[in-house]
Parts: sequence; structure tokens; C-alpha cells
Amino acid sequence: MYKINDNYLKLPGSYLFSTIGRKVAAYSAEHPEKNIIRLGIGDVTQPLAPAIIDAMHKAVDEMGRAETFRGYAPDLGYEFLRNAISEGDYQSRGADIKADEIFVSDGAKCDSGNIQEIFSLDNRIAVCDPVYPVYVDTNAMAGRTGTYDPKTEMWSDVIYMPCLKENGFAPELPKETPDMIYLCFPNNPTGSAVTKDQLQTWVDYANRVGAVIIYDAAYEAYISEENVPHTIYECEGARTCAIELKSFSKNAGFTGVRLGYTVIPRDLKCGDVSLHALWARRHGTKYNGAPYIIQRAGEAVYSEEGKIQLKEQVAYYMKNARTICEGLKEAGYTVFGGVNAPYIWLKTPDKMTSWEFFDYLLGAAGVVGTPGSGFGPSGEGYFRLTAFGSYENTLAALERIKQI
Amino acid sequence: MYKINDNYLKLPGSYLFSTIGRKVAAYSAEHPEKNIIRLGIGDVTQPLAPAIIDAMHKAVDEMGRAETFRGYAPDLGYEFLRNAISEGDYQSRGADIKADEIFVSDGAKCDSGNIQEIFSLDNRIAVCDPVYPVYVDTNAMAGRTGTYDPKTEMWSDVIYMPCLKENGFAPELPKETPDMIYLCFPNNPTGSAVTKDQLQTWVDYANRVGAVIIYDAAYEAYISEENVPHTIYECEGARTCAIELKSFSKNAGFTGVRLGYTVIPRDLKCGDVSLHALWARRHGTKYNGAPYIIQRAGEAVYSEEGKIQLKEQVAYYMKNARTICEGLKEAGYTVFGGVNAPYIWLKTPDKMTSWEFFDYLLGAAGVVGTPGSGFGPSGEGYFRLTAFGSYENTLAALERIKQI
Repeated sequence: MYKINDNYLKLPGSYLFSTIGRKVAAYSAEHPEKNIIRLGIGDVTQPLAPAIIDAMHKAVDEMGRAETFRGYAPDLGYEFLRNAISEGDYQSRGADIKADEIFVSDGAKCDSGNIQEIFSLDNRIAVCDPVYPVYVDTNAMAGRTGTYDPKTEMWSDVIYMPCLKENGFAPELPKETPDMIYLCFPNNPTGSAVTKDQLQTWVDYANRVGAVIIYDAAYEAYISEENVPHTIYECEGARTCAIELKSFSKNAGFTGVRLGYTVIPRDLKCGDVSLHALWARRHGTKYNGAPYIIQRAGEAVYSEEGKIQLKEQVAYYMKNARTICEGLKEAGYTVFGGVNAPYIWLKTPDKMTSWEFFDYLLGAAGVVGTPGSGFGPSGEGYFRLTAFGSYENTLAALERIKQI
Repeated sequence: MYKINDNYLKLPGSYLFSTIGRKVAAYSAEHPEKNIIRLGIGDVTQPLAPAIIDAMHKAVDEMGRAETFRGYAPDLGYEFLRNAISEGDYQSRGADIKADEIFVSDGAKCDSGNIQEIFSLDNRIAVCDPVYPVYVDTNAMAGRTGTYDPKTEMWSDVIYMPCLKENGFAPELPKETPDMIYLCFPNNPTGSAVTKDQLQTWVDYANRVGAVIIYDAAYEAYISEENVPHTIYECEGARTCAIELKSFSKNAGFTGVRLGYTVIPRDLKCGDVSLHALWARRHGTKYNGAPYIIQRAGEAVYSEEGKIQLKEQVAYYMKNARTICEGLKEAGYTVFGGVNAPYIWLKTPDKMTSWEFFDYLLGAAGVVGTPGSGFGPSGEGYFRLTAFGSYENTLAALERIKQI
């Protein structure tokens, strides 16, 4: 008789956003007259930029003609896209990442879930707390995290690095030495960023202790301050210790388009084994490339027109972020994030728990956000709002919040 | 110091199609005047059907307008597509598969590589020999296959089921009892099919011994004979033992579009654990849905126009298959497949090995095919040609083969 992977059974039951969905549905059913504004999930709302739409139409036409039809894509992505990424996201910033160190994929969620496969099950992972749940859940599925304690909401074999108001939401170097370190800056959910010096400390640490950093740079496009690195490869020595994950979801609105990439420098080696070669093998064996049409859409992100249009799109969301920050401050809240990231992280008032504040905000203002405790125990007492709504809704939500 | 997943290091070096690519490149360099015809890789060549092109243009336009823009897709796929699949591929054939038992993905290669994740590492797998390499390689990466013997080209912990001329290329029930059985019919690479009765034998066996069948039905659209099942769910009892994988690559030319799906019936349970729930968890945690535009393309496959256009496309390739079969027979070859599949499997003449015949065919006729031994030891002495070229090239290739 076959057996299942019983690591799956160790995962805690309900997914954060399903619980939120259920609560909102129940509230709507009881109060059908209420107009609910959702500033919860990190999904974008602005339509795709014209340069991207044009590129996709052109690519669709190519797929309809025998002379220009494209079948299987190159395993690691089309050169036109890898060149555009290498130039646009790295070389132009003085970060030496070549096109053949870039692996095009269908999104950073898949990559951040799959990357652990090329590592030993014996490795110990370290994550920020609070954290995007995919890093831990996918390691749990693989059997790398020990047992889950529902009381502490922690796994026995994971090193948690608290990110709190007290440390500026930047983790401190852990006391126990990890093998794999997940970092995400600008951060989801706290909206915080780190300076280049702070990130350099992590790169130096990883090189010293022999750890690999898995660096999620999904929110890079929202950086507004000078001193904040756009890629980990701005740091000296990152080529020997860091993998970078990147998404097109937030900088170009591709949540429903699906495109991302992973960078593995050729210098990243475990003994004499190249991680680049391992990931190439994984990609070639278990993946068949992102659609041609979508890769052309990705290329348009780096065109002159595309860059201008997307700058405006990011500015639109960041205007929302400012509206939220300022409105919350006016209403007397303590607020973090929102400067280099589309996320606003607020301290719940009156010692409310995150879920108590969720219920309060939904009931009193008809506004949906995300309880900080859903991202980990150190998120308790915090709450996340996102800047991805429409400006009108964002404004309306803040007016309501100010009145409660 | 972190460690890597050393199962990757056990994988035999070079991938079949890379070796072929290298050999062809070397030959071309030496004989620049020769016009080489490729009937090797299973990639399609016909452009996408007009109904699909129209659907994609429409979806691209929707993504460019705020009112119709779509962000994250539902985890398991859009209902419009799951309903079309359930009706078009199952209900219409009397197979009781509901829309919510279908998981939309970016292709059957990914699904066939990922599906093993929800099973225990202790499970023993059985595969046909020869076989599509992804099943074994992905189990090897997970650590489920023991050690590889380069002499026999076999893994110590895999149950191989030879498919030879002598058994009509249909595997016999294995002597050792497997936990997971990979079957693919119509078959890649042998081009053979099984009757409904033959497949029923496997379903009964799996239910009896407590094995799960992973059934790859990627080539279903090429079935021309009455008695050949289009889905494993035509067999009684398949809902309690079988997972089905399906691709849009070959029936609709989506090799560069990327769409597929996995069926897990709700009755499929290991003890009281639902495999549907496990895969839903895996999908929700590690995957973010196929692009909206591509799911609309998939929907168009099931439209009245789409069905007519794709029938013509499949007929085009099957005309090639007949051209190859008839031409090879005229030239004195012993030929299999090509009736319910786009693959032709021929016995190499004069006791040549598969690679000897590869060199012979390339040198004497300038035609590239795939050595059968590349798909497993029982493929030795066989050779695969595919019907996915243009008709003109296929005809020309066969003229050349007849003359050598």
C-alpha cells in the first residue's frame, strides 16, 4: 500500500487568507448594506501598462503564423528577456550579474517554494518573524522544520528572527548558526527596508559561517530612499553566498500574468558543486519555461515606454501608501513601512490582538486588512494594510478609519 | 555550512536531447552544405489555431482595462476552464470527473515532476521501460530511486516494466508490488496504445494491491481506434486509484503556451487522507495559477470553432505519421506506433544499436531522430521518429530514407 508524505499533515490547518475570506463573507451576509473596502491581500488592481499590452498582442500574432510560431522555450528563458533583466536590473546598478545567471520562471512564489529542493533536508533554516508564509510552509512540506507547536505557532527546527519595533523590523544575526537564511527586503509584511550597510552585514555573516541567503527582492520597485539596496548583489561578496528571487507581480502588475526569475551566480558553490548547475538541472527536469507571450510582456517592462508607464503605476500605489500612512497618523496610530514598500504595518491600539483589531476595523469601518499574527508570532499586535487598492477606495477607507 | 541535496549528484550526466543537439551541431559544422531534417524532439510546428489566437487577443485587451483586469487567479484554475475541461474531456465521454477535481497548471511536465511530492519517500515506483525520463528523474531527485548503475542504466529501487515488440509494448503486471505506477498511453516514446480492457486490468490491480496509478494522457487527442480509452476514468474503479495528467501541448500546440491539468478524484484516499486535499495544499502553497490569458486560450480549445480547427491540426500531424509509417515499411523497416500517437517506433536494422542507427541516419540521409536507448535499456535497438514536422519536410525525409 502506498503512503503519503506525512509532512503535509503537520502543517497547521487554515491558510491566513482563507480565514479572512470566511470572516468577511460572514460579515457581508449579516450586513448586506455595508460597502466593504479591502486593503488586505497583496494583489494589484491597476490594468497592465500599454507597452505591455502591445507587446503581448504582437507576440500572440507571432504565435498564429507558421513563420514566427514558437514551441518549447529555452529551459532557462529566452535570451531577449534574460539580457533585458541582466542589463535593466543588474548591470545598470553596478551589480555584476550576467544573463546566463538568470533563470526565468512563472513567478517568485513558485521559485521561493521550489528553491529549497536543491538543498539537503538536514539544513537548518532561519526566517524573519513575521514572514511571508511560503518559505516555512514549503520547508515543512519537505520535512526540514521538525514539529509544529500550535501554542507558540513555531516549528521546532526553524530559527526565528524577530522583527519588531524595537529593532526597526530588521532581524539581528541569529544566536544559532543557520544553513539557509531567508531574507525579504523591502519586507512583506512589515514594509520595512534595510540599508546597504545592514545588508552587507548579512552577506559577510553568511560567507563567514557558510550559510546561503535566499533573498526575496519582490518589492524592489517601491524603494524610494537612496541608501536602500535594490539587489543583494550591490553588496560585496554576495556572489558567493546569495540567491536572489524576483517577481514581476508588484513592479509591473503581473499577479495574473505570472513571471519571475531567480539569480544564481556561477560563483555560488557548495564545495565543488555549483548551485547554478543544480538549479539548471531542476529547471530543465521539472519545468518547461514561461510562455513566449509572457516573456515578451516581461521584455516590455524594460523598454523605454514600459519603464515610464510602470514608474507611474508604482507612483500611483505609493500615493496610496502615503494616504494610508498620513491618515493613520492623523487618527493617532503608530505606523511603520509605506516608504520603500507598498505595505503599511501599524501597531494595534489599546493592546488589541491582531485578530481583535481585524474584527474591530471590519465592524466599525468596513475595512479589511491582514492581522499581523497571521505572519508569525512576532506579528502579534500588528496589522497590515496594503497600498494596492484604487486611490478612491484608499481615501474612503482612511476617512472611515479617522471617524471611528 | 549548508549542504546540498546530493540526490542530484546521483543523476546520470547528460540529458538525451542535449547529446543529440551536440551531435547534430558537430555534423552540421562538418557538412555545412547538408540540409538536415529534424524528426527528433516532440515539439509541434503548426501555428496556434485562429480560435485560440482570438481568445488570447481578447484576454490581453481585458488585462489592459481596469474594469476587466484580473490579478491572482483562483488557486486551482478559473471555473470557466475547469468547467470546459470537465464537460469536454470527461462528462462527454461518460467519465464522472467534476470541475472541482481538476487542477489547472502550466503543463504536464511540471505536474508529472511535482506529483511525487505528496507521496512518502518510502514508496516504490514502477515505470515502463522505455519511458519519458521525467518520471524517474524527479523521483531520483527526491531520493526515492536508490542508486544508479551506469552499466545497466537502471536505478536499484525502481521497478522497470519492459515494453517490447514481444508484449506489444504494453507492460505486464510487475512481479514485485509497486506503490506508485506511472503509465502513459498513448505512449511516448513507443507510440503504442492499450485497449480499455488492458487498462482495466491495471486499475483492478492497483485497487487490489493498494497502489496509485499516475496516468499520463498527454497524447489522447491522437487516438484513432475505437477500443482505446481516452481517459483512465473510463475504467471502473479508477476514481479510487488513479491520478490523470493532461497536457494542452500536443492536442492544441501549446508547447510554448504552457497549460495542463491534473485530475485527482475526491474518492482517491490513502486511509482517511484525501490526495485531493494534499495536492490542493501543494498547489496553493507552491504555485500561483496559470496566466489568465493562457487559461482563456485553454477555454477556446473546447469551443465549437476551436474543436474543428484542432481536429484539422491533429489530422495534419497524423498524415505525417502515416507518411512515416508507410515510407519506412516500403524501405523495409519494421515499424510500430503512429496509429494512435504522433510517434513512430522502429526496429533498427542489421542489429545496429540505437545510437549507431542515429549516426547512420544522420550521415546517410541527413535526418535526425531519437535513439530508443535514450528512453531506457529496453529501448535499445529501437528508434523514435515524430510526426510533428511539416508535411513537406516529413515527405522529403522519407524520400531520403527510402534511397539509403
